[in-house]
Amino acid sequence: MRIGVVATGGTLDRAVVEPVRAAAAALDPAIRIDFHEQCFKSHGHFAGSDGEREDAFVAYANDDVHDAVWFGRGGYGTCRIAERAVARLEARARGKLYLGYSDAGCLLAGLYKEGFEGAAHGPMPGDVLTKGIEPVARALRWLARRDPAALEPSLGRSPPAVAFNMVVFSQLLGTPLEPDLAGHVLMLEEVDEPMYRIDRTLFHITSQASIRGVAGIRLGRCDPIVPNRPDFRAGAEEVARFWCDRAGIRWLGRADIGHDSANKVVPFGRR
Amino acid sequence: MRIGVVATGGTLDRAVVEPVRAAAAALDPAIRIDFHEQCFKSHGHFAGSDGEREDAFVAYANDDVHDAVWFGRGGYGTCRIAERAVARLEARARGKLYLGYSDAGCLLAGLYKEGFEGAAHGPMPGDVLTKGIEPVARALRWLARRDPAALEPSLGRSPPAVAFNMVVFSQLLGTPLEPDLAGHVLMLEEVDEPMYRIDRTLFHITSQASIRGVAGIRLGRCDPIVPNRPDFRAGAEEVARFWCDRAGIRWLGRADIGHDSANKVVPFGRR
Repeated sequence: MRIGVVATGGTLDRAVVEPVRAAAAALDPAIRIDFHEQCFKSHGHFAGSDGEREDAFVAYANDDVHDAVWFGRGGYGTCRIAERAVARLEARARGKLYLGYSDAGCLLAGLYKEGFEGAAHGPMPGDVLTKGIEPVARALRWLARRDPAALEPSLGRSPPAVAFNMVVFSQLLGTPLEPDLAGHVLMLEEVDEPMYRIDRTLFHITSQASIRGVAGIRLGRCDPIVPNRPDFRAGAEEVARFWCDRAGIRWLGRADIGHDSANKVVPFGRR
Repeated sequence: MRIGVVATGGTLDRAVVEPVRAAAAALDPAIRIDFHEQCFKSHGHFAGSDGEREDAFVAYANDDVHDAVWFGRGGYGTCRIAERAVARLEARARGKLYLGYSDAGCLLAGLYKEGFEGAAHGPMPGDVLTKGIEPVARALRWLARRDPAALEPSLGRSPPAVAFNMVVFSQLLGTPLEPDLAGHVLMLEEVDEPMYRIDRTLFHITSQASIRGVAGIRLGRCDPIVPNRPDFRAGAEEVARFWCDRAGIRWLGRADIGHDSANKVVPFGRR
């Protein structure tokens, strides 16, 4: 298997290359991981200009070489290129896997909207620097072997699912990237936000007519939460239950996803 | 003139009462300002529970006493009550003025959507604590006399306008609070956000089909901006121009609004 890494948001640290390749070699020496040189570029906030990031993603998605496109890390910037990048994809790109989370959710959404079956929410190479090798090894076991132990555990006994960072998802609603999620389980996680923002984001998400048709919402981990002044009193689960109840959306409980080492894989649209 | 103050988001400090009443008396001894006791309540993040805030707003909007409802301050919480509050308003409420900004934009949006002609974006009593008496006095001159010098200066030579805090506006898009803004000048201001979030918020706003029908966008002040790591390179105006250009929305220049003492009044829907 050959995996191509691109960074559609923030710049990737070269220090991720060696441990990620070592984890792949430990799993299966036949796995080859190519880090597109674009990953290490820097252009203000981004891993290269919009054009450079878009071109790198499109190149790896359309080529005859890679079986999977792995988003290098999050940060911010994928929304600036996602619509144009998806429009440039060719038939070859439809058969590949696309794995990432956080800011990369913008492209996962756009791919899923266009009928791609390989989009999945899960760990990225950059995780190795702050979360250790465990999430990266889990992602590789899913990419190379579809290891069922890598999957979010509620999958298989529920309707088709998708997973997103809450703010990233909120900011793509109503844009050309928003997929039709009728009948889907929507899993949402958050990181580094104060409770009042989690509350406001869930107001926005659950108030959309398009979202009121989901099969239900599962809440991933929201951790760490930035201190709220004054104290918000309610936690993320209480707030999520509140908005589900207000919107008539089914509350399905927690999801085993988040910005942490335990982050499991959620293949979009699969049971 | 009798003005009723309610706090639909965060708790108001009682220290605002005296200077705001003094500013009103200096302008016209006939102005009476009632601060609803709800303003000073505290319920976690909010100025009282959702029910208390909703009831206070509805009471002052529907009564036979007040000519204007003035939002006491911003904070967060108006989105939790706006839809229900607007649904409870009676005919008497349609003839009143409603002045505020920031978090209060959720109710201004909901009122404007329901055809209320008195909604306006402008200074609030709570501004006196951090921005001095000037914005409060300006708001009073508009409320009591419709002082044209209080108005955002591009008004009068442009199509009907609305004004919002950028994040607050982003988070009401697609919800039952979003008004039809076809043909309107949309003025947007921001405070205390890093550039990457301003960029993402403007992606979200300008990517909406509903927003692509506006007459154009004017950018208010975005100040202070939280430091962006790494440096974003582009400033708020460059980013706003970028997204207008990308979306085919007319860039109209700057607006004289913001979270500051110079914040001018923008009556919704007026030229």
